[in-house]
Amino acid sequence: MRIARFSIDGNVAFGVVEGDKPDELVLDIIKGIPFADFELSGTKVPLSKVRLLPPVLPNKVVAFGRNYAEHAKELGNEVPDAPFAFFKPSTSVIGPGDEIAYPSFSQELHHEAELAVVIGRMCREVPRERVKDVILGYTCANDVTARDVQRREKQWARAKGFDTSCPLGPWVETDLDPSDLTIQLTVNGQQRQLGRTSEMIHSIEDLIVNITEAMTLLPGDVILTGTPAGVGPLNVGDEVAVTIEGIGTLTNKVIKRG
Amino acid sequence: MRIARFSIDGNVAFGVVEGDKPDELVLDIIKGIPFADFELSGTKVPLSKVRLLPPVLPNKVVAFGRNYAEHAKELGNEVPDAPFAFFKPSTSVIGPGDEIAYPSFSQELHHEAELAVVIGRMCREVPRERVKDVILGYTCANDVTARDVQRREKQWARAKGFDTSCPLGPWVETDLDPSDLTIQLTVNGQQRQLGRTSEMIHSIEDLIVNITEAMTLLPGDVILTGTPAGVGPLNVGDEVAVTIEGIGTLTNKVIKRG
Repeated sequence: MRIARFSIDGNVAFGVVEGDKPDELVLDIIKGIPFADFELSGTKVPLSKVRLLPPVLPNKVVAFGRNYAEHAKELGNEVPDAPFAFFKPSTSVIGPGDEIAYPSFSQELHHEAELAVVIGRMCREVPRERVKDVILGYTCANDVTARDVQRREKQWARAKGFDTSCPLGPWVETDLDPSDLTIQLTVNGQQRQLGRTSEMIHSIEDLIVNITEAMTLLPGDVILTGTPAGVGPLNVGDEVAVTIEGIGTLTNKVIKRG
Repeated sequence: MRIARFSIDGNVAFGVVEGDKPDELVLDIIKGIPFADFELSGTKVPLSKVRLLPPVLPNKVVAFGRNYAEHAKELGNEVPDAPFAFFKPSTSVIGPGDEIAYPSFSQELHHEAELAVVIGRMCREVPRERVKDVILGYTCANDVTARDVQRREKQWARAKGFDTSCPLGPWVETDLDPSDLTIQLTVNGQQRQLGRTSEMIHSIEDLIVNITEAMTLLPGDVILTGTPAGVGPLNVGDEVAVTIEGIGTLTNKVIKRG
């Protein structure tokens, strides 16, 4: 099931995406929110008539660094023994089709395609065998990074937490085995990143055990699972697209911050 | 004016603290929230009859590292040329009197007394001369840190973001010149940290210009301004208290995580 969040005529709602042909997708509006048992309203609107929003509004985004060996190497870093995490704030989140605003304090913006895990229920100290129970589904993410600022500043709040640095979407796919999916990123149609989620050093189970050992996750929180090799520059005017097998494509354009 | 957030009979409200003697403080309940013009209800309750909560529920806590030279040196670090920031998530926030739960993944919990700035309005790219306009007031914070985890993990999400790692309180003081205040921390009544906010390397203006260059701050967001020298261990059973001149005292007990 694909769950989207959208606005239409000034109202915000969740809906289940129905259909297969990109131009003929329809949203069946959800009564309430998708973090508990829910019913469909039966009211259907064409996807082309709505504005898709970030599929969830996370309280926090927990992102893991260097979780694909080839990416760690391309930046000259060692592969870490244990996962390590950083935060992207809720104010960094944008949706499909929204614009990435090139920040004034960087001259080297990079794309990082990532599989995003959307948390479905409040949880802490989740045992490995229960990890599946706390996951609502999966979406595409772009961990947009001011690489020059990241090199200069010991902690990455500014380099990876600026406004618009966390595109998410286009929707949450709830029925998916995430263990071996193609993850791909293009800039202006040219392929830049290509990997498979099976290349992750630490599995999704490992990452969620690791972070919930320390902190409570809330419904709608998002875990970013690392980026495969091929990161590189984004420039004003670029159109960047993350495509993950079984989910869909998240497209955003880069603009100058107004 | 001192603005507290509290619960009484299952209801949560903000109130203005009146009175001088610690045992005779009274709360005048605020109609609505303190992030806009507000009126007092005139309904007064003794502070001793309520449970104080964290004075705000921040969307994000932005904390700055190594902003007092003596503290940077005591951990063997260089004093950074520019400020650098990290996040503590909303799930780490607790209030005055709440318990700090010693996490299972650390054997070296440390206290860090800090002056906390509470943001009063949504803002981005704040010029130096407008910083005062976006500040609601000031409170005490303890940037509780799993020092062993901090040494091991390149980014500090787990080391400084675990549940209960961000005590805030007891209230927000709105009428205060923060430029030269005594900041003190005791463990079981013994002084461990003592400094003055005038020893900050980067001023509050600098910090807010720096972070809002990158990201939007929301009403209730909190900026932690760094800790003076004297950080050290916390053990289960300890009572830790942060006192800042002109604000008050934030006291928390350390317990074993249940």
